[in-house]
Amino acid sequence: MNYNIAVIPGDGIGPEVVAETLKVLDKVGDKFNHKFNYTQVLAGGAAIDETGECLPSETVNICKNSDAVLLGAVGGPKWDALPGEQRPERALLGIRKALGLYANLRPAMVFDELADASPLKPEIIAGGLDIVVVRELTGGIYFGEKGHKDTPMGPAAYDVEEYSEGEVKRIAKVAFDMAMKRGKKVTSVDKANVLESSRLWRRVVAEVAADYPDVTLDNLYVDNASMQLVRNPKQFDVIVTSNMFGDILSDEASQITGSIGMLPSASLADGNFGMYEPVHGSAPDIAGTGQANPIATILSAAMMLRYTFGLMDEAASIENAVHKFLKNGYRTADLCGDAKESVTTIKAGDLIAAEI
Amino acid sequence: MNYNIAVIPGDGIGPEVVAETLKVLDKVGDKFNHKFNYTQVLAGGAAIDETGECLPSETVNICKNSDAVLLGAVGGPKWDALPGEQRPERALLGIRKALGLYANLRPAMVFDELADASPLKPEIIAGGLDIVVVRELTGGIYFGEKGHKDTPMGPAAYDVEEYSEGEVKRIAKVAFDMAMKRGKKVTSVDKANVLESSRLWRRVVAEVAADYPDVTLDNLYVDNASMQLVRNPKQFDVIVTSNMFGDILSDEASQITGSIGMLPSASLADGNFGMYEPVHGSAPDIAGTGQANPIATILSAAMMLRYTFGLMDEAASIENAVHKFLKNGYRTADLCGDAKESVTTIKAGDLIAAEI
Ligand SMILES: CC(C)[C@H](C(=O)O)[C@@H](O)C(=O)O
Ligand SMILES: CC(C)[C@H](C(=O)O)[C@@H](O)C(=O)O
Repeated sequence: MNYNIAVIPGDGIGPEVVAETLKVLDKVGDKFNHKFNYTQVLAGGAAIDETGECLPSETVNICKNSDAVLLGAVGGPKWDALPGEQRPERALLGIRKALGLYANLRPAMVFDELADASPLKPEIIAGGLDIVVVRELTGGIYFGEKGHKDTPMGPAAYDVEEYSEGEVKRIAKVAFDMAMKRGKKVTSVDKANVLESSRLWRRVVAEVAADYPDVTLDNLYVDNASMQLVRNPKQFDVIVTSNMFGDILSDEASQITGSIGMLPSASLADGNFGMYEPVHGSAPDIAGTGQANPIATILSAAMMLRYTFGLMDEAASIENAVHKFLKNGYRTADLCGDAKESVTTIKAGDLIAAEI
Repeated sequence: MNYNIAVIPGDGIGPEVVAETLKVLDKVGDKFNHKFNYTQVLAGGAAIDETGECLPSETVNICKNSDAVLLGAVGGPKWDALPGEQRPERALLGIRKALGLYANLRPAMVFDELADASPLKPEIIAGGLDIVVVRELTGGIYFGEKGHKDTPMGPAAYDVEEYSEGEVKRIAKVAFDMAMKRGKKVTSVDKANVLESSRLWRRVVAEVAADYPDVTLDNLYVDNASMQLVRNPKQFDVIVTSNMFGDILSDEASQITGSIGMLPSASLADGNFGMYEPVHGSAPDIAGTGQANPIATILSAAMMLRYTFGLMDEAASIENAVHKFLKNGYRTADLCGDAKESVTTIKAGDLIAAEI
């Protein structure tokens, strides 16, 4: 079969990690008899340099007409002086909204071979860690009304956190469906003791939970959740939360694995459409040095095969290839601390592709 | 001299830890020739049971007419079924606003003797950890307009995050003044790449920084801050942030010390007035068992002596007494995991008072 993928290499190490991922995808195509067609498009700093805009409408159109999007990373110091609305990161917000990518899935798992890298004590993560944070991605304070006004204490700026029943319902469903395929536990995180929007969130999540009698639902306040992730992360299976809380908690969850260079993500719309990208950023400091770890992007492609194309064996073949790479003792620079003993980005891509 | 302290024992273990704290304060009074007068008042669940309201106006009045407030903890399952606005925790929001307690100081430090308790690897906290989170406490989304409305995706609820220049300026000053007495570094945490209120926050903090040429100012996005606290917490000295982000990050910072039963807090108004309370909650499950650790409340009293009364030696005498208690090998149940080998709440209070 033919699959059309819009590819946004982006900035910094983005193009390098994407190139290795396409290498791996092509190998999967050969082996399983699929044809992956790539259309490269611009977003972020690269798009600003070329077109003056961080998210050209051509990019949005091509993404919309593709089956899925693969993104490297955007942003870098080169564009830091630009005003807020013109910064490369705005491309991320723009594309999420334009493509309706309301469900951000961020697995945080500890790889056996890399358990040492976690900043947490071994006994806390013993036996592995396997969490998925389901973050609402097109609502909340990110996209609510913003503005300025005068107050007795001087000029003020505001942002509105807002959630509708429909928005909460659809993201809760994603979380419960995910939990059904995993540990059957959902932890919904909010601040219902303070926020009206959190009270609506909690109520709607409970309503959705009624349709999933096999799944256990816990509610945690966000301050408590940020503690529990450090104290005892193994209590979690699926965490579902708002855009803002999800931004904070998914990064905290990534960090406790110690292997942020390994973690993929998926941002899904209704139906099977999705955008896939590594959790890490564009790391401009190591761009071009061969030190970038392509695994997070390669595993993002595996998520694409699974969630958008429904190609389960193909997805597993990528994940197994990554595990073999690690088991064979290969490490990229971020994982071994010593660039001399590490394999380059390209070599890592070659070795993983060879394992498919 | 005479000092008038409003005392809110509260719920759960609150009355127990407060009783030991007053014991220690009395000993300080004897030794340094001060008279501490206590007026016990009701708030939280205890107030609901007695008066039907979580924050009776008499409590607010007595607090206002005191020099400082000492609070144990509020809340518990007994009142969990009450609707939001009647819950014991609302007393906290109400009292903060009524007393103008806009600056919440939460030190997160690792005690040498308890370094083992941290969930982080020893090499990450080696040499000690000493952070103060300065959280804005009377503004932001906690106190912004809230409400309901209809949207195309169904009924919605909203909360407004809002900050004025005056609010940001005064909390930034508290942070910079604090940094001048410590490591001369302030990290301001916001989400300026997304929020209008964060852009105002960042600009005003930079303006205040100009008056403190000796202090280094860093700006971090909140998602990155939540990672850095786990990855490398020793990079921080003073963290200043909004009410909502401060709620999350100060709890995360507390947790990485592993000794939440030890951590005090101060909530300050303009002038010297302040409310002092432990970071931990009311722990209803261990109330009445003698397992509560009174140290967080005792150290909160030390903060009261320092910040509200300007009694530096007296504050240090409490802190030293706590250190001697630990050095002598005494532990409350939360610290040694084995209640049989631990000292009770009362015994801990006696031993610490004896060291004054
Ligand atoms: C760059 C920024 C706008 C973005 C976000 O906050 O969503 C990033 O932190 C992320 O999590 O993808
Ligand atoms: C009980 C709750 C309203 C409160 C808050 O969020 O401020 C608590 O979490 C705290 O940090 O003191």
